[in-house]
Amino acid sequence: MTDHHAQEGLSGRNFSRRTMLTAAAMGAVAPVVAPAVVAGAAPAASAKARDDSSGGTLRRITMYAEELPGGLIGYGLAPGGATVPGPILEIWEGDTLEIELINNTDRQLSIHPHGVDYSVDSDGSPLNDSFNRPGERRFYTWRTRAPFQAKGGTWMPGSAGYWHYHDHAMGTPHGTEGLRKGLYGALIVRRQGDVLPDRQHTVVFNDMSINNKIAPNAPMFEARLGERVEFIAIGHGDQFHTFHIHAHRWVDNRTGMLTGPDDPTPSIDNKDLNPGCSFGFQLIAGEGVGPGAWMYHCHVQFHSDQGMAGIFLVRNEDGSMPPGAQEAIDRHHGHGTDH
Amino acid sequence: MTDHHAQEGLSGRNFSRRTMLTAAAMGAVAPVVAPAVVAGAAPAASAKARDDSSGGTLRRITMYAEELPGGLIGYGLAPGGATVPGPILEIWEGDTLEIELINNTDRQLSIHPHGVDYSVDSDGSPLNDSFNRPGERRFYTWRTRAPFQAKGGTWMPGSAGYWHYHDHAMGTPHGTEGLRKGLYGALIVRRQGDVLPDRQHTVVFNDMSINNKIAPNAPMFEARLGERVEFIAIGHGDQFHTFHIHAHRWVDNRTGMLTGPDDPTPSIDNKDLNPGCSFGFQLIAGEGVGPGAWMYHCHVQFHSDQGMAGIFLVRNEDGSMPPGAQEAIDRHHGHGTDH
Amino acid sequence: MTDHHAQEGLSGRNFSRRTMLTAAAMGAVAPVVAPAVVAGAAPAASAKARDDSSGGTLRRITMYAEELPGGLIGYGLAPGGATVPGPILEIWEGDTLEIELINNTDRQLSIHPHGVDYSVDSDGSPLNDSFNRPGERRFYTWRTRAPFQAKGGTWMPGSAGYWHYHDHAMGTPHGTEGLRKGLYGALIVRRQGDVLPDRQHTVVFNDMSINNKIAPNAPMFEARLGERVEFIAIGHGDQFHTFHIHAHRWVDNRTGMLTGPDDPTPSIDNKDLNPGCSFGFQLIAGEGVGPGAWMYHCHVQFHSDQGMAGIFLVRNEDGSMPPGAQEAIDRHHGHGTDH
Repeated sequence: MTDHHAQEGLSGRNFSRRTMLTAAAMGAVAPVVAPAVVAGAAPAASAKARDDSSGGTLRRITMYAEELPGGLIGYGLAPGGATVPGPILEIWEGDTLEIELINNTDRQLSIHPHGVDYSVDSDGSPLNDSFNRPGERRFYTWRTRAPFQAKGGTWMPGSAGYWHYHDHAMGTPHGTEGLRKGLYGALIVRRQGDVLPDRQHTVVFNDMSINNKIAPNAPMFEARLGERVEFIAIGHGDQFHTFHIHAHRWVDNRTGMLTGPDDPTPSIDNKDLNPGCSFGFQLIAGEGVGPGAWMYHCHVQFHSDQGMAGIFLVRNEDGSMPPGAQEAIDRHHGHGTDH
Repeated sequence: MTDHHAQEGLSGRNFSRRTMLTAAAMGAVAPVVAPAVVAGAAPAASAKARDDSSGGTLRRITMYAEELPGGLIGYGLAPGGATVPGPILEIWEGDTLEIELINNTDRQLSIHPHGVDYSVDSDGSPLNDSFNRPGERRFYTWRTRAPFQAKGGTWMPGSAGYWHYHDHAMGTPHGTEGLRKGLYGALIVRRQGDVLPDRQHTVVFNDMSINNKIAPNAPMFEARLGERVEFIAIGHGDQFHTFHIHAHRWVDNRTGMLTGPDDPTPSIDNKDLNPGCSFGFQLIAGEGVGPGAWMYHCHVQFHSDQGMAGIFLVRNEDGSMPPGAQEAIDRHHGHGTDH
Repeated sequence: MTDHHAQEGLSGRNFSRRTMLTAAAMGAVAPVVAPAVVAGAAPAASAKARDDSSGGTLRRITMYAEELPGGLIGYGLAPGGATVPGPILEIWEGDTLEIELINNTDRQLSIHPHGVDYSVDSDGSPLNDSFNRPGERRFYTWRTRAPFQAKGGTWMPGSAGYWHYHDHAMGTPHGTEGLRKGLYGALIVRRQGDVLPDRQHTVVFNDMSINNKIAPNAPMFEARLGERVEFIAIGHGDQFHTFHIHAHRWVDNRTGMLTGPDDPTPSIDNKDLNPGCSFGFQLIAGEGVGPGAWMYHCHVQFHSDQGMAGIFLVRNEDGSMPPGAQEAIDRHHGHGTDH
């Protein structure tokens, strides 16, 4: 019940978390030229002045850190709605995201993002005294920008990417206990022109688990044949991992897709997924291989054998089960990993 | 005797395994528009229909899984011809490869590929009931394709790449025991226009071994000065590794070469080689550095110290030994790694 | 006192080690067509003849390997000047660097580079009898070149890159003990047109240390707001690591910068940094995020918790401390990592 993916409808079109988040952000003041002054910490004020002529949108959301059954702690977009992993946060390059984080636990915790711009008071670290004490509300502001030219004409990186956010304050100054308990999620910054997926899945290799679960209870990710499915893969913890998915592959760049037929970027189906790293890609479910129960797993042998393996279920186009898929799922669930 | 590389002639031009495999595939029906119906599993039938107007070739080979001295098990292209690693399988993007795998052992095993397209019954996994029982023959069909445009015009990855194949059924549902015993090999899918090498070497960092051997018996790879040598590097097992080769370098993309002088892709001589990952590259043996006994090794210190180190011997153009090379080989063999 | 970074001035413009090294190389004979004959090992003589029409410069330096307090051993550019890490060696693609290494210790050791061209007698390995015995002087010659076209028109890699050098002879044939004691440093080969930084920092994740130090004594890297800062990150030892820096990011290619606004190379702020690997990038200090005490650390949780974490201090443009930075430094130093 702590995995929002389990809540995704198997029948009918899935309106992804992305859509849901956009709805949650509907109250946003958009577009804006400069971030508005907010209560509590006002990160924008201490940040270096910047050109906001990009006309990015200011999005405001409230997030809740809450205890969950089984000793987990998760982030959510509504009271009682915390999940592990947390919701997919998704914005466009140029946007600013203001998060009011409400800490409904009795532990200190924070939210620290990768890939975006923030001032020291939105760092999410005890080092910068930027965290929520037990029961405390706190604002964190994340800014983004398109690639820009620095002195000398060099092109510096924009914010677009498959990033992630996580606790940086519980247990140790690096949030080790918060991460262990489930305080992590995906953050996507899209660039103008990026193609939107039909469905999204967050896969976090966290220590010896996938989204804090192991086989046979590791998440089963679903799609219908031909859907454009986006995976956001994130690594956390103390172990090294490699993410592998059967019968599908992607391109090892920002989008996971080629820029054209002569693009020399490697196609891969197995990639290092180590702590603090993240990547994402879109695939066409079952394209060229058909529907079925396709395995995804860590390719480190003893990790997969000990339960870092799950199923990417590609259903028929009408949502029905393809031949053999239920038997495969039963094998996975009935026998666990020691077939 | 289990290493086919040891069988490569040191005098005279080497006709690589690639050439040999092509010969083995000479019986192939080529070109074909659709895969022919074959006995046993008929993966093509259950696959999603696809446009085969690319006119790819259907290649048929028979592979044998056999026990080898020292507790090893290998794949081979002829009875009694199994090696560790198995033969380099090499096809062109667009081709289909039909493998009849004959299991001459009393264990269950399979062949699972990376990078190519296959239906669930060619998955090579117990999950999909796709494996050879003891003594059983079974067909596996691997399809490939060029980059293609999906809805919205996005370019999805083709199959070209330095991939690999391995057991996915012995000992655990992930083939952990099969991998440990040597059931792995290189799979190359080339794109039209790709340059062919003079010589090829497969390097598998498998747990704490190289091709299931350790120094001073780790494989010695050979070439002559100026030859175009292709390495296919594959990782397996439970350990993390980094592959390093002395005095040579490559480009970190699909081919290992630049697209032109302004290509910003990094040149590297050391790369992560973790379980399930693979990469390949071509170098000009001794180019700019001369012939000699050049070390290749895992750069994790205790891995190289414990035997994950071997020699890339670059001979003179006429095949003779360069000054100092025999002494270096003797040092390596005489003293092992604790010089 | 063994960290040259600690010697960098906090007030006034920093004239980086790069500048200093260039000064040390002022005695170089430049440009030359072929490397001059030198005393001792004469690597150029045994190397394959090559076209030096690029007119690269021959640079000659003397390096000293010396014992340091605390059981460390470092490389330096002057007697008594050894540091851990050693000096940043920096040349242009096409240049040749001749190093006379003076071993002022009673141990055997060497200097082995990544990314550049060298003959077997400059290999720096016991395998090729290329190392300094106790008290011995020895010449090592490193050559570089621009990308070039091989037979068939393929473009082979040039030498430009963020590389490194290290011992390959102390303790084991792979220099494991020399590395543990601090015999490592950065080597930069620049391509014509590359942008030079205002300031440089070498970050070596060596086993469980950063530059052989751990928090709260891990190096504090400094810059002023708006400066172009270059990091060279290197991995060594037996552990896997991921390098993360707060509030800044770079592009995962040769330079760390985009070729233009449509470049699909990923922006990252966290990257695998495993033994023998290296990468570099330039960032604009505090750009879009403001000055402050920004954390950099290994993102493997127990590594950061055990001390692989330090501060990237971005001062105000005038060199003064930004609000809150001293408090952050005090927290880091006062409480160590168990805040």
